[in-house]
Amino acid sequence: MNNTTSPLNRVITKASLVVEEGEDYQEIQIPYIEINCGDGPSLLLLAGCHGDEFEGPVVAQRIAEWLPNTQLCGKTRIVPVVNLPALSARSRNSPVDGLNLNRSYPGSAVGTVSQRIAHAISTKLLPEADMVIDLHSFGPTMGFVPAATIHRGDDAELYVRTVELAKAMRLPATVVWDEPDVVGMLDTLAENQGKVFVCAEIGGGSVTLTNIRIGVDGVRNALISLGMVEGTAEDPPYSCGEPGQLFEVLAPDYLTATKGGIFEPRCSLLDDVEVGDVLGILHPLIAWSEKSLPVRASTRGKVISVTSRLVVESKDTICLLAHASGE
Amino acid sequence: MNNTTSPLNRVITKASLVVEEGEDYQEIQIPYIEINCGDGPSLLLLAGCHGDEFEGPVVAQRIAEWLPNTQLCGKTRIVPVVNLPALSARSRNSPVDGLNLNRSYPGSAVGTVSQRIAHAISTKLLPEADMVIDLHSFGPTMGFVPAATIHRGDDAELYVRTVELAKAMRLPATVVWDEPDVVGMLDTLAENQGKVFVCAEIGGGSVTLTNIRIGVDGVRNALISLGMVEGTAEDPPYSCGEPGQLFEVLAPDYLTATKGGIFEPRCSLLDDVEVGDVLGILHPLIAWSEKSLPVRASTRGKVISVTSRLVVESKDTICLLAHASGE
Repeated sequence: MNNTTSPLNRVITKASLVVEEGEDYQEIQIPYIEINCGDGPSLLLLAGCHGDEFEGPVVAQRIAEWLPNTQLCGKTRIVPVVNLPALSARSRNSPVDGLNLNRSYPGSAVGTVSQRIAHAISTKLLPEADMVIDLHSFGPTMGFVPAATIHRGDDAELYVRTVELAKAMRLPATVVWDEPDVVGMLDTLAENQGKVFVCAEIGGGSVTLTNIRIGVDGVRNALISLGMVEGTAEDPPYSCGEPGQLFEVLAPDYLTATKGGIFEPRCSLLDDVEVGDVLGILHPLIAWSEKSLPVRASTRGKVISVTSRLVVESKDTICLLAHASGE
Repeated sequence: MNNTTSPLNRVITKASLVVEEGEDYQEIQIPYIEINCGDGPSLLLLAGCHGDEFEGPVVAQRIAEWLPNTQLCGKTRIVPVVNLPALSARSRNSPVDGLNLNRSYPGSAVGTVSQRIAHAISTKLLPEADMVIDLHSFGPTMGFVPAATIHRGDDAELYVRTVELAKAMRLPATVVWDEPDVVGMLDTLAENQGKVFVCAEIGGGSVTLTNIRIGVDGVRNALISLGMVEGTAEDPPYSCGEPGQLFEVLAPDYLTATKGGIFEPRCSLLDDVEVGDVLGILHPLIAWSEKSLPVRASTRGKVISVTSRLVVESKDTICLLAHASGE
């Protein structure tokens, strides 16, 4: 532990969250930095949950360099890499127990390594936070428009505050997921405890410098809106409508491959499409062995994600649409 | 086999190259289309050599749809997927024998499946071609500027013709590799037989619609320059200098990670950099456990490739520079 008190009564602590050794894996020390300026909001900034989403740890590292000199009130804790086993293996799920960390909450002190990491975060970092920003991306297989994503829970007042923080990030889109599979998510755990929870999806497909800048600006914009730092919000260098605009993604907006083959995209991120528009062509892997099929939009919307792998299997998601929301 | 004669004495044949069964894998039929208009150049267009480079098969499929109605002279053969086992597994090397098909030439009729594929292409498709365009990309781990890439062999006259075809594609860059490891490449085999060989690297990292269009236009531009189709060459929708401009990549231009960690890019594709410029920061995987290191350009040049994985191991290539060449 290493404390520094700055002129503004800013107490900066670099420490580690200890995840105890279990049968499957050694003790893990998860480094974090705490910047404590006393009264004000308490924000937990997490990254590196899924090991194939590289943008978050870079963004968190950038914020961790800058915030110790700029935070004015409240408390932040920044964890650049939550899931070291997965990130080391560059895999979404843990190579140790095969689990998705973000389906392992609240976890268990005596479970497998992902469950132990989840338990440590749930019990030692989450309780003190009023709000959480969790930095994700769509990983290497899907291009994705950088977006602040949220759930619409049962608590209307919490939803209003959540939308407010999400939009304040001014990412190219704010997306409300209609997600069926939310059991075991940190999002769900935090929301059920009445905390504001925003999952930032900082792009996907290739990691680009532009998306990383959008992610850094997004967190900074959130901190400005919370009054925790001074400054003016930056708009993303992205051809979008009003930054932060609210979209909904519903179950029919996931376009999946009806069979395996080569997907030829005929759309780009942020395209506006109408029902029936051709978004791509599904070719057989063995050329001309079957007819190539057009993949058409079944709803009107904006393209927020397109597969970047092109060789797809039946039921793989190939395209994701979003709709402007009335909030 | 399925022949059609069009009004222009265009004979269109869809056929398959048979790779015989071996101990390790069943017989493979590799579909190709031949468009034969009699006298003129003979071009072989290949794609799908490495199974994690998805752009080529899509570009080849697009050309195979369009060319039967537009070719005016000469002969083309188009093979959208050369290496079906690798593409099915989405892996660079074959999942069957672990071999890189483009290090397996000239191959063997009695070898493993990659060697048998190489042998079938070397003996049945290559002999009739005057020139080869092989569609590759940098795959999902490295962003890359779409480029026509060539080698500078010993035959000066062949090199001049190769540069001519490569530049005629008008991709954002034409790159001369100083590649140490060329044994077993189809490139080398074809060059040694006096054939013009251009390897088009149609981007890398995420597959984008823009790069696919650049690839399709590049092949079309090449066919126009050969007089095989009518039309006007299209410039790529890319912020580059003169399209097709010649660059060299030498051994010192490969910047590699000096240790494992998180690479934070501070440069983008096509940036011009000077010696000493910071191209990125190498952070330890365990935050603050070691000092973060700047990665600096050791030569002056243009960034043509940046890793898109960010979590790197020691000796991984993280950045590739190119230099304007005097030809």
